[in-house]
Order: sequence, then C-alpha cells, then structure tokens
Amino acid sequence: MFQAAAKAQSVASTLSQAVLLSIRHYCKKTPTKLRVSEALLGAEWGAHVKIQGWVRSIRHQKVNLFLHVNDGSSLQSLQIVAASHLNDPLLTFGSAVEVTGVLKESPHRKQPVELEADEIHVIGECNPVDFPFKIKERHSLEYIRQLPHLRCRTNAFSSLLRVRSEATTAIHSYFKENGFVQIHTPIITSNDCEGAGELFQVVPSHPENEEDENFFSVPAFLTVSGQLHLEVMSGAFTRVYTFGPTFRAENSQSRRHLAEFFMVEAEISFTQCLEDLTRVMEDMFRSATEQVMAHCAEDVDLFHKHVTPGHRSIFRVTYSEAIDILNRSSQKFAFPTNWGCDLQTEHEKYLVKHCGNIPVFVTDYPYDLKPFYARDNQDSPEHTAAAVDLLVPGVGELCGGSLREERLDLLRARYLELRHFGSVPHGGFGLGFERYLQCILGVDNIKDVIPFPRFSHSCLL
Amino acid sequence: MFQAAAKAQSVASTLSQAVLLSIRHYCKKTPTKLRVSEALLGAEWGAHVKIQGWVRSIRHQKVNLFLHVNDGSSLQSLQIVAASHLNDPLLTFGSAVEVTGVLKESPHRKQPVELEADEIHVIGECNPVDFPFKIKERHSLEYIRQLPHLRCRTNAFSSLLRVRSEATTAIHSYFKENGFVQIHTPIITSNDCEGAGELFQVVPSHPENEEDENFFSVPAFLTVSGQLHLEVMSGAFTRVYTFGPTFRAENSQSRRHLAEFFMVEAEISFTQCLEDLTRVMEDMFRSATEQVMAHCAEDVDLFHKHVTPGHRSIFRVTYSEAIDILNRSSQKFAFPTNWGCDLQTEHEKYLVKHCGNIPVFVTDYPYDLKPFYARDNQDSPEHTAAAVDLLVPGVGELCGGSLREERLDLLRARYLELRHFGSVPHGGFGLGFERYLQCILGVDNIKDVIPFPRFSHSCLL
Repeated sequence: MFQAAAKAQSVASTLSQAVLLSIRHYCKKTPTKLRVSEALLGAEWGAHVKIQGWVRSIRHQKVNLFLHVNDGSSLQSLQIVAASHLNDPLLTFGSAVEVTGVLKESPHRKQPVELEADEIHVIGECNPVDFPFKIKERHSLEYIRQLPHLRCRTNAFSSLLRVRSEATTAIHSYFKENGFVQIHTPIITSNDCEGAGELFQVVPSHPENEEDENFFSVPAFLTVSGQLHLEVMSGAFTRVYTFGPTFRAENSQSRRHLAEFFMVEAEISFTQCLEDLTRVMEDMFRSATEQVMAHCAEDVDLFHKHVTPGHRSIFRVTYSEAIDILNRSSQKFAFPTNWGCDLQTEHEKYLVKHCGNIPVFVTDYPYDLKPFYARDNQDSPEHTAAAVDLLVPGVGELCGGSLREERLDLLRARYLELRHFGSVPHGGFGLGFERYLQCILGVDNIKDVIPFPRFSHSCLL
Repeated sequence: MFQAAAKAQSVASTLSQAVLLSIRHYCKKTPTKLRVSEALLGAEWGAHVKIQGWVRSIRHQKVNLFLHVNDGSSLQSLQIVAASHLNDPLLTFGSAVEVTGVLKESPHRKQPVELEADEIHVIGECNPVDFPFKIKERHSLEYIRQLPHLRCRTNAFSSLLRVRSEATTAIHSYFKENGFVQIHTPIITSNDCEGAGELFQVVPSHPENEEDENFFSVPAFLTVSGQLHLEVMSGAFTRVYTFGPTFRAENSQSRRHLAEFFMVEAEISFTQCLEDLTRVMEDMFRSATEQVMAHCAEDVDLFHKHVTPGHRSIFRVTYSEAIDILNRSSQKFAFPTNWGCDLQTEHEKYLVKHCGNIPVFVTDYPYDLKPFYARDNQDSPEHTAAAVDLLVPGVGELCGGSLREERLDLLRARYLELRHFGSVPHGGFGLGFERYLQCILGVDNIKDVIPFPRFSHSCLL
C-alpha cells in the first residue's frame, strides 16, 4: 500500500497539469475502484473514485449526511459526505454500500481525506433490529466470540485478522530470506507421537464395509507436531520449516487451550550448540514482530499500549540458574522448585518478571524432563539435555526446542532407521503461533486470536 | 540468494585489496560457512569457506580425490578437489561431510567454481551396501516413493520440494501484493459440506468416558473446503484467501487421488461478473508460474522440457460452445456429450488440445451441474450458473469457481443467516495445489508432488 502511494505520487509529479485534468475528466465517467486503505493514503485528491464496503456509522445533519465506510483493508473507515437527498431508508448501520464521488482534503484533523459522494447504492440491506451488533456500542470479546459468522465485522476482530495475516507473511519471509525450504508436513499421520498428550483419530465418516473402516490399513491420527517429518527432510536440506495446524484432544475449555492451533516448526542440520537454535528463534521473533509493527501499527495499537517490540536482547539463564532464582525468591509457589521439577506457569511468570519483563531463554533442562530425542549433554552430576524454552511476558512458554540426539548408540530403536544414512547433528524448535499473537497483542484468551476456535464442546461452523 | 551475491560483489568492490587480504587471512582461521548455492554463485573466489552436506559422488584419481557435495540449497552440487591423503574409508556415497578449503575458479565448463579442500570431516556415516540408493543409478519414481524417509535425498524429489516451497511463496506473494487478507480456515469443522464426497470424521483416540466420545458435542469432520469460512470473512473484507490442506475419504489408489491435498481458495466481494474471478485466477496462475521459473529454473528443467510458462493468454469458451466443439469432433468419446452432461476428463483433455494445448476457461455451466451456492444466471432456455473451471494441459481441471448466490429469495434455508446482514455479491474459486505442480512440472502421479502422500491403505510415517 505504501508502494502504491509512492508510485501514485511519483506518477502525479511527472504528469503535466493538462494531462492530469484530462485523466480526471475521463475518470468522471468511469470512477477508479479504490480500497479504503488506498483512498486514505491521500494520494488521489480530486480523483473520481468508487468505494465499496460496509457502513460503520451514520449521522444526519441538516444539509448533509455523514457515513463511515469500512472494507476490511484498514482499521480506519473512510468518511463519506453526501447531500441529504442521497439518503435512503435502507442506508443503515451494517448495510453494504457502493459509493462514488470525489476525494477531497478533509477539514477534520483525524482523517486526511474524505469522499464527497455523488451516488450511493445500498448493495446489501441490514436490519439494525436483528443485527446483533449495535451502533456505537462496545461489545465484549466474550459476546462477539458467540457469533463466529459475524465477529469479523467488529473493529477488534478485523484488526486481529489483519495482524494474523501480516504475522504469517512475516514468518514466511524470515525463513525464506534465511535459506529455509518450506515443507508441507502432513496433517494425517500414522506416527502415534508417544508422550505428546491426547490424540484425535481419523476415520471415514460412513464406512460402507470393513475395509473402509480401516481406510489407511493402520490407525491414523491428526498430527501433534511436524518434527519427525522435518527431521526426515533435514537429512537432505540443512534448513527446513513448516507452518500449519496441529491438534490436541485435551478436554479443556481454559483460556490457554485449543484443540486446533497453529505451529511454526524448524529444523537445522549441522548444529554444534544450542546457540545455533536460539539465534534463529530470536531473529525470527524479532524480525516478525518488527514487520507486524511496521505494517499494522494501528491494528496493534487497538489492542493495548504495552507491546514490547523493541526487545533489544533476550535474557539467557540455564535451568539450574532459574531454579536458584526461584529458590532465592520471597514469593510462595504452589509447585515445588527443587532441581529436577518441571517449571510451572507460576515459575515461568516469575522468571520473566525477575529478568525485567523481557523474553527469557531457559536452557539445559534436566534430561529426564525432556523427550527421548533431546540431545544428552552427558554432564554430571546434574545430567541435562541440550533443550531450550523461550518464555515471554503475559504468555509463558512461547517456543520450545532442542538439539536432537543423532548418536546411534544413544537412541532407541524406533528412531534408528532415520539416523542410519549420513546422519548429522541437528536441532529444532516449535513456536505456538496463537501464543505469539497473544504475546504481541496482549490478548488474554487464546480463542480470541484464531478465526474459528475449536475446543472441547465447541466446533461452531 | 541473488541478493547475497549482489551484496557480496558490492561489498568486495568497495573494500581495498589490503583490507580484503587481511579479511582472507582472518578467514583462513575461521572459515565462513556457506551454503552450496552461495558458493556456486562464484562471488567468493579465494575465500576460505566451510561447506556442509551429503556426498553425491566420489571419484579417486592418482593424486586427487573428487567429490560432489549437495546440501539441498540447489540442484547442483559443489565439486570438491582434495589431495589423496585426505581420503577416508568412511567417505562414501550418502555420507554427511564438512569440508573446509578455498573456492577457486573451476577449469571445467559445467561449474563456475570448485572447492580445493584442506580438511574433510565425515560427520555421519552411510553404509553404501545398506543404503537403498546406489551411486550413478537412476531410481524410478515408484521406487523412491516406497522410501518416504529417504526420498528427499534424490535429485528429483529435492527439486520437487524446492519448487513446491517456491510456488507456495509465490502464491502467498501474489495475494499479499493484491490486497488479500490470509485467513487460516479451520481443519476440523462441524459443517457436513453436503455433496462434497466422502468425509473423514474426527474422534478422540482414547475416549475415557461417554463425554469424551462426544468431544465437540457435535459430529466433527476434516474440512473438504474453506469456502464457507471464507464467505463468512467476505462479509467484512473485500478480498480473502486461504491456502492449506483439505481432505477426502475416497477409497482410491489412482494416480489422480489423495486423501490429503492442498488447496488455494479465494473469495472476492462486490463482484459483478465472472470476469472479476477469471482475472484473479489468470493473474495468480501466471504470476506464480513466472516466479517459480525465475527462481527454480534448473529444478523445473529437471522434470521435463515441455513446460508452458509463457501462456500469453488463457482461452475462453462457454460450456455451450465446449459442447459444440465436442460434438463437431471426429473423436469417439466414452461418455455422452449432450448439453447438460458433465465434462469428463476425456472431454477436458480434448478441449485443451483443441484450443492449442493452452489453459482454457470453461464458463456458464448448466445450473443443475453446479452446487446450490453457484449464482443462477436466470437465462433461458438453457438455465446456466455463473461458474467457471480452468482446464490445463496434462491435468484437466485445475481451478473451479463461481459467483455465489447472494439473493436471499434464491437461497436455501441453511445459507440464509450468512446473507442477512449487509450481504454483497461475491464469488470465489479453488485451485488444487498438487495439480498446479503437476501442470507446471509435467508429473503424472499426484503422489510424486507432495512430501508425504496419504491415500487409501497408505499413511507412511
């Protein structure tokens, strides 16, 4: 959009006034279709344009009618000024309209531009009595969550969707620019992912015979992680990643759980130390957040004022140091803080606060706390694994990763085949994409950062 | 990668020779880690570098040893020249190695650059007797398909994965640059998607009690299309798209079917005619293909020589014209070609050939052949719907789309709620991503263009 504006300005400055006038004359007949975000750039003053969108506010004055029209291209709506005779009883809050007119400099400070309408067509009616959103009313996130087919009509949720889309682009850009190959890891898998919590099984919905019931010949599940499939690929590519939905059949309606959520996962070959992973985790986090802040500043602002995009550096502690910090604290914890105990949310929150409310890497967890594929540090007396978690303010654990055990003699049988032929030291991590959005936006409930949340007893649409 | 080369060249040209020499001296101690694709650019002659990857060929001569090392960053491997004393019995086809040395201009025409090794470390062994791929042997696609955990080690499949990754990026870029918001439509849905073929149902794998069995309170399925969810969003955004996996429980092992495949779907609001859709379909197809050809020319070349990237224009016929063409043909078809009959693969192939073996839009299908949401053209006597399919050489149907029925009185009950509040004319389409890859690469079997194919009786890994 910025490019479009720059282009328009540079084109305008190189055209003579006479040419411009004749273009405007032509445009009078066939108005240029513009998105609201394009119109708001203010590069097209005097142009005859067509705007399409939904009415967000309507105000009648003696001689004029004022509308705000939004088309989802930005948080801001475009102000329309029209003579009273253009009014129409069907022109209501929520209705879809097509407006043609001339873009003018606005006398108001809040917007740079307004549209002086010469025609208004109501394209889709909206009965304000039935419409569940009311003009000028603030609806709670809980209320709009009940209306999955309409919540995109609210400022809060359409901002969220633009941020989510931008963050997705930003994450893909980061990996692309850093030489990662994107792998579409499968959703359906025969891998039972031991230890990864409750699974969903996949079966044909109307088996006609016994053969159908056993569609894949083996039990098939929804994936809980693309790690195994990425590890396969890291036998031929030094850098791979995947970004897609993963699943847990956890029977929880808490604000922290979804049955379907998105994960970013990466694997890097020829790693030598945890630093090879934490560098990528940190760069990705910073670069994605910077891009979101640069392109969606208004949308992010809508959520809260305490975003912390400029994390200059991420704090680093080992698990053993973290345990020391917890034990020296005067705070009473509900869960034990002995060496060997897993860090609970209360501990993670304390650590983040203790470190100055910035993101914190915790490294080298007790070997017994991590899955069998985490690389054994072969240290003593502690016995730790080369694993790392990234904790962030407001959310707790955002990413988890580890060097993977590549030494055949240290691996269990089922992983062996993958390590047989030209096996290399490698490591990887996963980032919970919804948690990332919660982190940068300060959103408390995970159901408010995904378009169609699925959780126990809820699968609307 | 091109940027890296350009940057390196510009940096090199601005540094004095003395500085360069001291940098090289320093590098002698800590070699720069380069990807093979970076080394092959030839911008780093004389640099002391480290390369990591897998041995693709090995040849002993009297005084020298020649290796080719590939790291997945490009189809081409880097030639390594080493003195015989650097040989190691573990240096075999398939083993993982780390090589340091100096980049030199190659005396051979085929590669611009080679690496004169001063150290070779075998990082991961590979027993050539057990390794299922043999040096210098060509393995059939059928054979490598049996080895899902190793097929990325072949030239053909690693090229495919690079093309797939680039095509994914290209499609996202197209939509981003054209103002579309990406929506993560859900995988699990309670929408039973009537008429969309066989569904997979999703159930918890180990229900502990009756409540668990009914995890979502309603039957839940794997999505067959994100269209409904995109239509929801097109009530607030004028342009939305989704790109992700979709599912069919079709009991078929044919070369045309997968149980899990990727689809690109888009919805556009305020459409007025089919042209509003076909323009986007055509632009997306052309822009994605151009980007793939520009960034992965070597990989695409590996597949075949008859790619048709420069489709100058897409041919357009109505369904009625297509029926005329078929009926005037001297070819005998197995399926009937009366007006009202659906076009079969044999018909689609004939039409593409008839139009000069270029992509063809077929528009305005009989109303009764299309789903209820396709917009009624209200014409007579034919009675057609504003629907369009894009047929391409070698594959047949690649995209299908339609204007959606927005007129309340013409819609059936279940769609009503979505059309109540500020409903607008809109339309959309879906593109089968695997079919797209088959089309640009000329790959016959759909299982060869997806990392981990799932189909009846097969769910490996």
